Order: sequence, then structure tokens, then C-alpha cells
Amino acid sequence: MTAVLPLTSSVTETDPSCCPPPAGAALGAEEAKQAALVFKALADPNRVRLLSLVKAGEAGERCVCDLTEPLSLGQPTVSHHLKILVDAGLLHREKRGTWAYYSVVPGALERVAGLVADL
Amino acid sequence: MTAVLPLTSSVTETDPSCCPPPAGAALGAEEAKQAALVFKALADPNRVRLLSLVKAGEAGERCVCDLTEPLSLGQPTVSHHLKILVDAGLLHREKRGTWAYYSVVPGALERVAGLVADL
Repeated sequence: MTAVLPLTSSVTETDPSCCPPPAGAALGAEEAKQAALVFKALADPNRVRLLSLVKAGEAGERCVCDLTEPLSLGQPTVSHHLKILVDAGLLHREKRGTWAYYSVVPGALERVAGLVADL
Repeated sequence: MTAVLPLTSSVTETDPSCCPPPAGAALGAEEAKQAALVFKALADPNRVRLLSLVKAGEAGERCVCDLTEPLSLGQPTVSHHLKILVDAGLLHREKRGTWAYYSVVPGALERVAGLVADL
């Protein structure tokens, strides 16, 4: 009669002799670069306020013509900041007649929040 | 016999004659400034990786001596980036013997994630 020897759990445990930092769970260089680009777009008080103003706008959008006064900034400066937010994938821009209208890209803020939580 | 008149819900509704942009829901200048400071700390790929490496460290902490190699950076540069993350309230630093040990401030990443989601 032969008995089947059970595999001891120690066999499947992590080898304690393995000493480099467990970098597997950490972000890689390319992921970190992409994340930093989005954070850079948010790393300015005027851009944070613009994003917040657009989000709070009626029907979730705001005309560029309504964004200069709350920030006390000229339109070229506001347009420059808005372009950075568009390029980062946070805002959507739509030209209608004379003015451009901005809205938050659906799910964009949730994705950034998830990115931070999962760092 | 007197009947108590119910308050109609329309009395408490928002006055539709109010027309300026509904900036009440948007972030104020001071809140935006504070938020931008945290995003600025995250606006660098090396700092994003450092934060991620510290979080993935054994027992949630990492010796500074284990952070230079994964980033291929010198220790003064790594220490500079770590200081920015500490100053932003994201990392906690503890000196033990020769080395400094870093851990993520409890709840800090969740607060930043909430900040983004609630913009």
C-alpha cells in the first residue's frame, strides 16, 4: 500500500532567499510616465479651477466665453490652459459658431482617481 | 379647527432667475491651489514610481537604500524626489539607524483620488 505524500505548503511559498524589492506590483516606467503627464495637466491651480468650472457647468459644459471672468485671466491664457487639459484627455472641445464649448471627457476623472488609488 | 398649511416644495427650490455660472459647485481659488500642489508632487514619472515602489514594499514601507536601483538614479536625486512627496503629505519618513524608511501616509492616496473624483 502506498500513501500519496501531500505537497507541503512551504514548497509553493515565496522563496525567502529572493531579496530584490518586489517591484512586480509597482508601476513600470512607461505607466509612470503616462500617469505623470495627466498629473502635470492638473498641477496648476488655474487648470484645476477650469476643470471644476467646466464640470459644474449647465449640462456639464461651459463656453470659453464664461471661463475668463471667474479666473480673472485673459482669453489667450485661459485657452492655453484649456488646450493642456484637452491634450491630457481630460476635456473635450467643441466649436459651435463663434465660441468653443468644453466638457469633461466621460469617465476621465474617474480614471485618474482610479490611477491614484491603484498606484 | 385650524389646518397646518404644508410648505410647498417650490418654495425651497433654486430660484430659476439666478443666471451667473453656477460656480457654487466649483472649487474656490484656495482649494484649487492646495489640490494643484498635490498634483505637482505627482507630476513627475520618477515620483510616481517612487510612490508606487514604497506602496508595494514589504509591510508597506521601503528603505531609501532600496529605491535608487529600480530608478537608476543617484541617492541625492531620489532623496530630493522623496522630500517633495513627504512635503505634499503623501509619504511618511522615519529615520532608523543609518537609513530612512518611507511609507505611504494612511488614507493619502484615497484622499487624492476623492479630490479628483469630486472636482
